[in-house]
Amino acid sequence: MRATLLYGAGDVRVENVPDATLKLPTDALVRVTAACICGSDLWPYAGKAHDSGPARMGHEFIGVVEAVGAEVTSVRPGDLVIAPWIISDGTCEFCLEGKQNACVHLSMWDMEPDEGGQAEAVRVPSADGTLVKVPAGVDAALMPSLLTLSDVFGTGYHAAVAGGVTPGSTVTVIGDGAVGLLAVLSAKLLGAERIVLMGRHRVRTDLGREFGATHVVATRGAEGIEAVRELTGGHGAPVVIEAVGTRDAYDQAVGVVRPGGTISRVGVPQYEEAPIGVGSLFLRNVRLAGGAAPTRGYIEQLMPTILDGTINPGKVFDVTTTLDGTPDGYRDMASRKSLKVLITP
Amino acid sequence: MRATLLYGAGDVRVENVPDATLKLPTDALVRVTAACICGSDLWPYAGKAHDSGPARMGHEFIGVVEAVGAEVTSVRPGDLVIAPWIISDGTCEFCLEGKQNACVHLSMWDMEPDEGGQAEAVRVPSADGTLVKVPAGVDAALMPSLLTLSDVFGTGYHAAVAGGVTPGSTVTVIGDGAVGLLAVLSAKLLGAERIVLMGRHRVRTDLGREFGATHVVATRGAEGIEAVRELTGGHGAPVVIEAVGTRDAYDQAVGVVRPGGTISRVGVPQYEEAPIGVGSLFLRNVRLAGGAAPTRGYIEQLMPTILDGTINPGKVFDVTTTLDGTPDGYRDMASRKSLKVLITP
Repeated sequence: MRATLLYGAGDVRVENVPDATLKLPTDALVRVTAACICGSDLWPYAGKAHDSGPARMGHEFIGVVEAVGAEVTSVRPGDLVIAPWIISDGTCEFCLEGKQNACVHLSMWDMEPDEGGQAEAVRVPSADGTLVKVPAGVDAALMPSLLTLSDVFGTGYHAAVAGGVTPGSTVTVIGDGAVGLLAVLSAKLLGAERIVLMGRHRVRTDLGREFGATHVVATRGAEGIEAVRELTGGHGAPVVIEAVGTRDAYDQAVGVVRPGGTISRVGVPQYEEAPIGVGSLFLRNVRLAGGAAPTRGYIEQLMPTILDGTINPGKVFDVTTTLDGTPDGYRDMASRKSLKVLITP
Repeated sequence: MRATLLYGAGDVRVENVPDATLKLPTDALVRVTAACICGSDLWPYAGKAHDSGPARMGHEFIGVVEAVGAEVTSVRPGDLVIAPWIISDGTCEFCLEGKQNACVHLSMWDMEPDEGGQAEAVRVPSADGTLVKVPAGVDAALMPSLLTLSDVFGTGYHAAVAGGVTPGSTVTVIGDGAVGLLAVLSAKLLGAERIVLMGRHRVRTDLGREFGATHVVATRGAEGIEAVRELTGGHGAPVVIEAVGTRDAYDQAVGVVRPGGTISRVGVPQYEEAPIGVGSLFLRNVRLAGGAAPTRGYIEQLMPTILDGTINPGKVFDVTTTLDGTPDGYRDMASRKSLKVLITP
């Protein structure tokens, strides 16, 4: 079968690899019908060393079950399923609390060296805990939106939930990438009244407005902080969602948050240490929340709003390609020519 | 009048200074009846440069109003009052939300160069917003406990509130100083069921047990983390209160917090940058909360539990001295010979 491999920075190839097969009785074999490229795939695309050997790519996908191991009970061949970016058992104390990112049997697609969603098929470990079945007979037009439940929408939603967005909230979202835009949609869904989107790409911020942003701030740094403060009563936003992951974006979040407010981070931090002391968070009682999104728990919660047409998060996909177009998809997302690329293997 | 001055590291003197007097119509003049030394006073005591000139000390005190400015309406001469460590106007949007640490007219005692609580008298700015009246006729034996409302108890309580302690909570408190011990008392007051106190000084941890600690862990580092995990179901505590302020204490907090849990910091951070990325907080969705405590708001809330004898936070004072004994008080608190020193000017 064919699959996507990252050989090193800027070097993505689609190649023949051994067919995915069941290995454990808890596995499912899934034929991928739609996958996509994640903003977080762009970090290794930017910096992976060639000498570490090629890595299988892709952790967001939807597909049809082809076979299941003897112990799998929740899905069966023919089922359309959504796979979240985290592999979890569904039964441990953390999974039962909805914290699948702390599952005691946690795995991730990049910890499974022979699997990846940007491929024709995938072996899915812990299938009962990981996969979520889509009701039969769903309109094909809904597939892009359902695919966002795999990671990008659930991550934006996690940002809004962890930030404590409630009806009437004022929220600032930093970043007009797909996660940031879906954080806007999520904040709107949770009842936020004022949503300031910080982003500079007009096409993206226009989609942000469609998703619910009431204001767009295109400036950054001190100027951006001033603009957000003007829009939020002079003291900043009580909830700030940081959907980028760079130190600059974190510093921007510290600058635009209101005293006593919350910074909710979902962009994978490209830093380990950052300011949290008296001069940044402590004196102003700013809470730092968020983290890796337990999207598995949000899939069942959010799917009905997609199935009934309430929302259309799939609008973040501006390009659809076959597996052959995946290398170009990486290039175009990295250069910000494309917002988010959908792959139909 | 006589007041405490810090000339430089290790050099505290009690000297004659000009009498405190009213300056603004919003001021009150307060004769101090009890003050104390704060753990945070020990940071400049350890490191202040001599060449920056002497600084007036003390931000925790209780006293009797001697005179008030023309605009002061909430207190009058003869009233016994508690002064919180933050000076706030009581009327701005932040004060009304109970976030006095973000008051738009915020001041602190160390921002008032001629004032300090470790003295015979103090000019209190924004008296209506800042001071809280104690009911007349209160038993003198309650004064130490009432004095803790100024800062140390409110700070411990803020740690528990910001950490989200609720009935049944499991909490780990790092630090057996007065703030840590009163965080234990606060967690107990909020209904915590399991309270693990990390501290190595037997006399202090014994008081911690009296305040509600169900377990004491005397080890630190990896060994301490292991011990706390064993006491908290194997994965750490959902709420960790960091009541020290050093990087070591922060790292300990990161080590003992459960995935999805909260670290609530109230020890003044002696660092600005610290780990918050994928390897520390992000992947495990650990929230970072707390900060400078808006103790003003807690005074009225907590005073009844002291007046009716429910709790006795004044037990943290193990030494009482006159103003003359203040330099020795600093020395003994810095060497950890004394837990917390009460001064009766």
